[in-house]
Amino acid sequence: MTARAAVAAMTAYTLELREAEIKLNQNESPYDVPFKDEALARIAERPWNLYPDFESTALRTALAKAYALQPEEILAGNGSNELLAAAVGAFVGPGTPVVFARPTFALYEKLVTIAGGLPVPVDVDPSTGLLPLDEMVNILSNLRGAVVIVCSPNNPTGGVLPARGLESLLATGATVLFDRAYGDFALDELPPLHDRLVTFSTFSKAWGLAAMRVGWLTSTAATCREIRKVKLPYSLNIVSETIAAIALENRAVRDANVARTIAERERVLAAMRALPSLTVFPTCANFIAFRGNATFEDFLARGVLVRKYANFLRVSIGSREQNDRFLAVLKECA
Amino acid sequence: MTARAAVAAMTAYTLELREAEIKLNQNESPYDVPFKDEALARIAERPWNLYPDFESTALRTALAKAYALQPEEILAGNGSNELLAAAVGAFVGPGTPVVFARPTFALYEKLVTIAGGLPVPVDVDPSTGLLPLDEMVNILSNLRGAVVIVCSPNNPTGGVLPARGLESLLATGATVLFDRAYGDFALDELPPLHDRLVTFSTFSKAWGLAAMRVGWLTSTAATCREIRKVKLPYSLNIVSETIAAIALENRAVRDANVARTIAERERVLAAMRALPSLTVFPTCANFIAFRGNATFEDFLARGVLVRKYANFLRVSIGSREQNDRFLAVLKECA
Repeated sequence: MTARAAVAAMTAYTLELREAEIKLNQNESPYDVPFKDEALARIAERPWNLYPDFESTALRTALAKAYALQPEEILAGNGSNELLAAAVGAFVGPGTPVVFARPTFALYEKLVTIAGGLPVPVDVDPSTGLLPLDEMVNILSNLRGAVVIVCSPNNPTGGVLPARGLESLLATGATVLFDRAYGDFALDELPPLHDRLVTFSTFSKAWGLAAMRVGWLTSTAATCREIRKVKLPYSLNIVSETIAAIALENRAVRDANVARTIAERERVLAAMRALPSLTVFPTCANFIAFRGNATFEDFLARGVLVRKYANFLRVSIGSREQNDRFLAVLKECA
Repeated sequence: MTARAAVAAMTAYTLELREAEIKLNQNESPYDVPFKDEALARIAERPWNLYPDFESTALRTALAKAYALQPEEILAGNGSNELLAAAVGAFVGPGTPVVFARPTFALYEKLVTIAGGLPVPVDVDPSTGLLPLDEMVNILSNLRGAVVIVCSPNNPTGGVLPARGLESLLATGATVLFDRAYGDFALDELPPLHDRLVTFSTFSKAWGLAAMRVGWLTSTAATCREIRKVKLPYSLNIVSETIAAIALENRAVRDANVARTIAERERVLAAMRALPSLTVFPTCANFIAFRGNATFEDFLARGVLVRKYANFLRVSIGSREQNDRFLAVLKECA
């Protein structure tokens, strides 16, 4: 075996597969989409033996229309994971410092390590989980040619950048990779385009299409051209591309998912805040990070799968029934 | 814009989109699959709002059974492109020499460049297009820690490695990335596993599922573990994974595709060899590289889309009717 040193030194990710009746560990939408028949009928008509469009032009055109952008300002891919990897490939080389919050989505550090970049983690506020914007800005101001990857709302802690947070990061001169996977649940808006800003969105959360693996990014046409050099062509199969385009035609489905999830989140948060033994992080996402007496194993033993981090747990907002099951365990173990 | 130097120096790939009645430019199968209804029924039953399995266990298990391997010896991904990228990420770092034939599948050089490796192209035999095995072995014997990427049958020239070709490459001590995307049409067999050999296969060609973007690789479990550190998780959506698994249950479809394509290839080859103005490269693939009087534009003007290279053309083997249209243009312009 001759894997290069940077890879050999990485720890293999081993996912301990756990199954439970109530699955609240991956920030998925609890609602399946209502347009399956229409989607499958369209897919049946397409030839399965021919390659998809080289760069998902149909979906990029639909996204451009939906978000008042130009198709050249959009790349679509196999989940935002693929696009994050392409952007890191475009901007991070050996020794490039890359600032990100700790904890945040674990993929960022993995991608930086593979690219040979220098990970610069900055701890979130330990009592609130909020993003350490001021510290990130200070660190970036002392670095040249740096990249910052910021997830807002931050996965897994839930906090958002304050107003003008992206502007502060951009003002340092850094390239900003902004992951708004959970932005729909914060009722965010796409930030204005900037050559040093790349914004990543996904159909996996608010749109309820995690099974299809579709993400997209937006930046200026010039920056998209650079990332496109690194991105693999044909990365979106015809089924996922077609289904994402149908989802855009059914924007009301997404809006209903978001409204129901926010309402449930506020209900669950209120119930959790009524439990004095719990520490609950503020959240604008479809999940809640918390610390209390109930352990990961306590939940699992009672049929509820949550996500375990070093010193807190994270629960996704599910359906009302799922959330009630979660709250029942929480109260039982309080 | 701050793309790193290696990326900024790359030429943006611009695909000139051409449309024609007869599409013989991407080595696709001309036959759509007969199990669409079954596949769509299975997909309708699955939840679309939940993530796919972390590492495509169902498909890897089905592949293991079909090819007498263990699931730990297989990775499945979003086309073999994604897996090639992961393997290059695992084995190629700054300065790693990477030997490959010229011409070959253009993605290899792109991936090596992004990884900061040192591309070492070795020209194919100009009169036959055959892979330059002896020269590759000689070059590799003088390099330490090298990687070789070999496509056999080679895209776009069609020739295969001679018997014991892979063994010769492995004997140099190099890591061998072996792309057998077209191997089904050469009636090849999967080579025995080796820690320094990674074999890439695809559902896009003989299996007739280019639209679904499914590829897989096999190596020893130890080498798969290293590549898995680099590969993105959840890279295969549930639809593509399900359809590939159904294809494996319908092996006879693949076998019929292969038999029809080989029969057509031999018929087209015989017709082309009867034209004295043509140079025809030997081929074991589902395409033929050739040089003659007819230009890319001649074909296009007559409704036939072929692929243009620096000093030859490549035509995919299509249906009998498509191939007849191709041959008619060839004779008209001979």
